[in-house]
Amino acid sequence: MTLPYRLHYAPDNASLIVRLALEELRLPYSTVLVDRSAQAQRSPAYLRLNPNGTIPVLETPEGVLFETAAILLWLADRKDRPDRGGRLAPAPEAAGRGTFLTWLFWTSNTLHMDLRGYFYPEKLIGDDAADQAKLRQVLRGRLRADLVILEHALQSTPGLAGAESATLLDLYLPCLMRWCQLYANPPRADGSTAADAERWFDLAVHPALLAVCQKAETRASTKAAQQAEGLGPTPFSNPVLATPPEGSAT
Amino acid sequence: MTLPYRLHYAPDNASLIVRLALEELRLPYSTVLVDRSAQAQRSPAYLRLNPNGTIPVLETPEGVLFETAAILLWLADRKDRPDRGGRLAPAPEAAGRGTFLTWLFWTSNTLHMDLRGYFYPEKLIGDDAADQAKLRQVLRGRLRADLVILEHALQSTPGLAGAESATLLDLYLPCLMRWCQLYANPPRADGSTAADAERWFDLAVHPALLAVCQKAETRASTKAAQQAEGLGPTPFSNPVLATPPEGSAT
Repeated sequence: MTLPYRLHYAPDNASLIVRLALEELRLPYSTVLVDRSAQAQRSPAYLRLNPNGTIPVLETPEGVLFETAAILLWLADRKDRPDRGGRLAPAPEAAGRGTFLTWLFWTSNTLHMDLRGYFYPEKLIGDDAADQAKLRQVLRGRLRADLVILEHALQSTPGLAGAESATLLDLYLPCLMRWCQLYANPPRADGSTAADAERWFDLAVHPALLAVCQKAETRASTKAAQQAEGLGPTPFSNPVLATPPEGSAT
Repeated sequence: MTLPYRLHYAPDNASLIVRLALEELRLPYSTVLVDRSAQAQRSPAYLRLNPNGTIPVLETPEGVLFETAAILLWLADRKDRPDRGGRLAPAPEAAGRGTFLTWLFWTSNTLHMDLRGYFYPEKLIGDDAADQAKLRQVLRGRLRADLVILEHALQSTPGLAGAESATLLDLYLPCLMRWCQLYANPPRADGSTAADAERWFDLAVHPALLAVCQKAETRASTKAAQQAEGLGPTPFSNPVLATPPEGSAT
């Protein structure tokens, strides 16, 4: 039997966010590992699915989709949660729709992109270590500002995230916070501890974000993802590096 | 009389894209100039509207919205074009919706963000001119790849842009192409001509993108924006620097 959705994923990559949405909506899907250790995301077959070579891709009955947030919004607008009702995003005609879209796009093009630059500095500044350090220093400042803005938005905007019934941001933000914690203080080549100045991320100073992460850890969608991708306990509020059953997280 | 929409804009900034959507939908709106020469986008009053300090902001009967693509999608899903019917984006239940969202998010978080980095390198790498030159060199390569990918998508995906009835991408992409042409080859401080290696953008090598730009120039929405922001003739296919009736484009 062919399942209607097919997620091209790598463990603990952006595909995790789409997996959470598929789980939250109880959609039947299969997965295909994108082997990053073999640069499979740059293979001709993968580039035919997504010419950008980014992960994830979701094959659907209506065609091949990519861009994490686009997939999330498309799913949210198509599918109600079958067992508990409710939606992952306000309906197009609902009062909170505009504000929700504002923060969804902001998460995609500002917070997520700043993190991408921080994790993959070579994509913006090339391979020189000193150049990368300069870029990351500026990006740390941007990310600190991003997180203050986001914390305030969560505290002051009902319906964005953190309620009993999950929204797309309840799936998206915990993954970004996971990666902030895991990769904010990367181990040095010589194995030494990073200097305090480089330890830029502390989830505890953002209580609304912390609550969103803790709430996410109570959901069945998270449990399924933990098992599928080896995320360990408390994957969002206090994560450890993934030990996936297949593939590599880095 | 208070009009229902209020656009905080600066001439020839991202607010231009939202202005085109408001015009295309024939929505009644007023404008408020954000005086960039006085850094008004960093003023406490503006930051209360949009804590990121980015332009545009759209005040609506349902609250204050920001993020260009979020505003575009919100408007498209709420409003049909009153005189000609049709929508600026496929409806949530329509077959092309997922693919359209894919390219809308990609335009926002990849093409637009790469251009932002190119135009404002100090936001990513600080104020050193040599560092900025390195960043821009990498971004030129990214942008070249982005445009090849986009051109192929436009050629192979019916309904994205370029048809008689405009989509959001028919409004968004021509503005980005305008800025590529105007700012791809910035005048040097000493007034000399940029070296050939720095002249990275040529719209003519992207025929589908060129056609989208030329088509946009036939629309009434463009005519209104040309007048309001002093964009000059052929603002998308062969632009000159804006001479706006108020404010400054830079």
